[in-house]
Amino acid sequence: MNALPGFRDFYPEQLAIRRHIFGRWREVARRYGFREYDGPPLEPLELFTQKSGAEIVGQLFNFVDKGDRAVALRPEMTPTLARMVGAHHRDYKKPLKWFAIPQLFRYEKQQRGRLREHFQFNADIIGESDVAADIELIALAIDSLRALGLKQDDFVVRVSDRRAWQRHFAAAGITDDKQYAAFQAIDKMEREPLEKTREKLAALTTKVDEVLAFPKDDLRNVLDQIGDLAAFCEVDFKIVRGLAYYTGIVWEIHDRKGELRAIAGGGRYDNLLKLVSGVDLPALGFGMGDVVLGELLKERGLLPKENHGLDCYLVIADEGLRPTALKLAHDLRDAGIAVDYALTMTKVGKQFQAASHSGARYAVTIGPEEWAAGEVKLKDLAAGKEERVRIAELKGKIS
Amino acid sequence: MNALPGFRDFYPEQLAIRRHIFGRWREVARRYGFREYDGPPLEPLELFTQKSGAEIVGQLFNFVDKGDRAVALRPEMTPTLARMVGAHHRDYKKPLKWFAIPQLFRYEKQQRGRLREHFQFNADIIGESDVAADIELIALAIDSLRALGLKQDDFVVRVSDRRAWQRHFAAAGITDDKQYAAFQAIDKMEREPLEKTREKLAALTTKVDEVLAFPKDDLRNVLDQIGDLAAFCEVDFKIVRGLAYYTGIVWEIHDRKGELRAIAGGGRYDNLLKLVSGVDLPALGFGMGDVVLGELLKERGLLPKENHGLDCYLVIADEGLRPTALKLAHDLRDAGIAVDYALTMTKVGKQFQAASHSGARYAVTIGPEEWAAGEVKLKDLAAGKEERVRIAELKGKIS
Repeated sequence: MNALPGFRDFYPEQLAIRRHIFGRWREVARRYGFREYDGPPLEPLELFTQKSGAEIVGQLFNFVDKGDRAVALRPEMTPTLARMVGAHHRDYKKPLKWFAIPQLFRYEKQQRGRLREHFQFNADIIGESDVAADIELIALAIDSLRALGLKQDDFVVRVSDRRAWQRHFAAAGITDDKQYAAFQAIDKMEREPLEKTREKLAALTTKVDEVLAFPKDDLRNVLDQIGDLAAFCEVDFKIVRGLAYYTGIVWEIHDRKGELRAIAGGGRYDNLLKLVSGVDLPALGFGMGDVVLGELLKERGLLPKENHGLDCYLVIADEGLRPTALKLAHDLRDAGIAVDYALTMTKVGKQFQAASHSGARYAVTIGPEEWAAGEVKLKDLAAGKEERVRIAELKGKIS
Repeated sequence: MNALPGFRDFYPEQLAIRRHIFGRWREVARRYGFREYDGPPLEPLELFTQKSGAEIVGQLFNFVDKGDRAVALRPEMTPTLARMVGAHHRDYKKPLKWFAIPQLFRYEKQQRGRLREHFQFNADIIGESDVAADIELIALAIDSLRALGLKQDDFVVRVSDRRAWQRHFAAAGITDDKQYAAFQAIDKMEREPLEKTREKLAALTTKVDEVLAFPKDDLRNVLDQIGDLAAFCEVDFKIVRGLAYYTGIVWEIHDRKGELRAIAGGGRYDNLLKLVSGVDLPALGFGMGDVVLGELLKERGLLPKENHGLDCYLVIADEGLRPTALKLAHDLRDAGIAVDYALTMTKVGKQFQAASHSGARYAVTIGPEEWAAGEVKLKDLAAGKEERVRIAELKGKIS
């Protein structure tokens, strides 16, 4: 039996990569003063439909539970965040700076590189309408990629503004009720022939050329507030983000070569909290998935070699010393040292093989003669050097 | 709208507790040489029914997905582990020592302290039939509780042996086909009147008193192999574990006062891998949930005070210095220092309030006079002391 299509098994080698990525995300979020939260992976279906409309159901893992509730595995984190903040925002000083690393689920058509689950670094700022918050969030996204070893020639932040587009659409005679369709047309531009985009826009306005001239707003002004990190950013009005709820600056991060899908995307959604929870607070956030990012890191040789994290392997040279060795193993483990050993009687040569294979830094041999003298043999496995050390000094030597 | 009944929202305060517990679990697993893995939270329903029978479906969040697959949220981790190991065991040296911290789901009747999801520390050893592996695993469980601050008078490991029971049942004339029912009767003993247990056993054998005399095997022998940690263990044949698949030593960890449900439970399941994956490897494991453990830690005052993890709060004394302050914030963050600041113009007094409220260790004030002199003011918020420091020396002072 296999895992379901589109779902990943994380064997230790893959889990080590996931932990590396999550670790950097958490570390950079901490530096930026963001606090971690989480919500349930299963939520009332209505939480998602009220925000995205009934059409989202086609992409969900949804069902009716044994208590007759319509429920769904979360396809994104923002509705849960909006629900949680709505319920308890009075307990927290604004602005909230919160992040999470949820696993998200979508029932999508199977295609290469397209999974049905992924993990996503979600960071949001709630309760601040100033553009300084947009800048702070973009900086966090850039630095979380830098912390993974990616550089200016690896990725670019493409920044746009929904309000500039709204004014631009209005000037071209596209009324409010047709602007969502106009955003959808622009959103698909990069993946469709221009003729198709023109056709879609022609259904909304006679001024198609005007629309395709793009807004002329000077977002560079905004981007320069990000300081040195502005070098990672470009103004690009082709970015509008597909989701309906964005209300201000929107942005995506792409690999510079443009070979992969978006690495991250975010923007301001000032009306969503009110819609979901009735609490009127400005908000903005981004999501950065682990799949495309993992592909990019792999391609650039930036994934770490696996480190089993083992400090030492105990070699039991005489079975009579096993209880002694087990006691030593426990003392070392209690001191925070990672220790492994052969659980049953094994030839010394085989134990050394296992020690090398385990990735341990040291092999510690417990033999009758040394032990009687209050010593063990300590071998540095990388250097191949062995010395006798006092048992009392072993912890200090290893840690 | 609320979370579904039985599902938890983790606000930052609660998430901090969860991370504390997970952190200790991971740290102790590392010391013991266990490697982390994970699998999908959604699995084919058959993975669970082939192991536990069709009756488990009543307790599952199961449904039919949009591709007509019968699927279920995982109620336990062992079937996934068995599936994964079965598929790739040839890639790994035996014994495997693996752990995971999955979120698990059960549709259970709502009652106090009974959730529909929890996180569980799962550790397993695969490919070793010697009792040394049982001992290693019990030691890991004990040490993971010790690492959280729990002591010998807080909890006890109650150890039993299914094989001793099987021999005991056989001697009392209970045939193999009736032993599962006998195990179920013993398993429920502590929660039912003795008369009820007698009744159940009477349906299986005429020798009820003999059964209730319990096996006389000397497990103490085994437990003494665990060294000093033997003080945490008791032989207790009332423990048999409810699940059908255990084949050897089984054990549970309970609070000493016996007020809570089990903190952890585990045992040997040598036939399960063959059943699930066709690969015949001896195996054993345990699960330790976060809910009962969290209650015990709270009761014992062992939950950490929340630490926002913020190192310093920048106080911008003059709006003209905001770009300078942002650049300083970024330099500090790049150096691994956790920094926050007011995103918009705010009175200095309010900024200091926010600094205190944030839990930061230091407030760093950027004022025109000091900055011109190449300095900032550094205030230790706990000590209430402020000094002027050279900007170049700030990182060293804070980190």
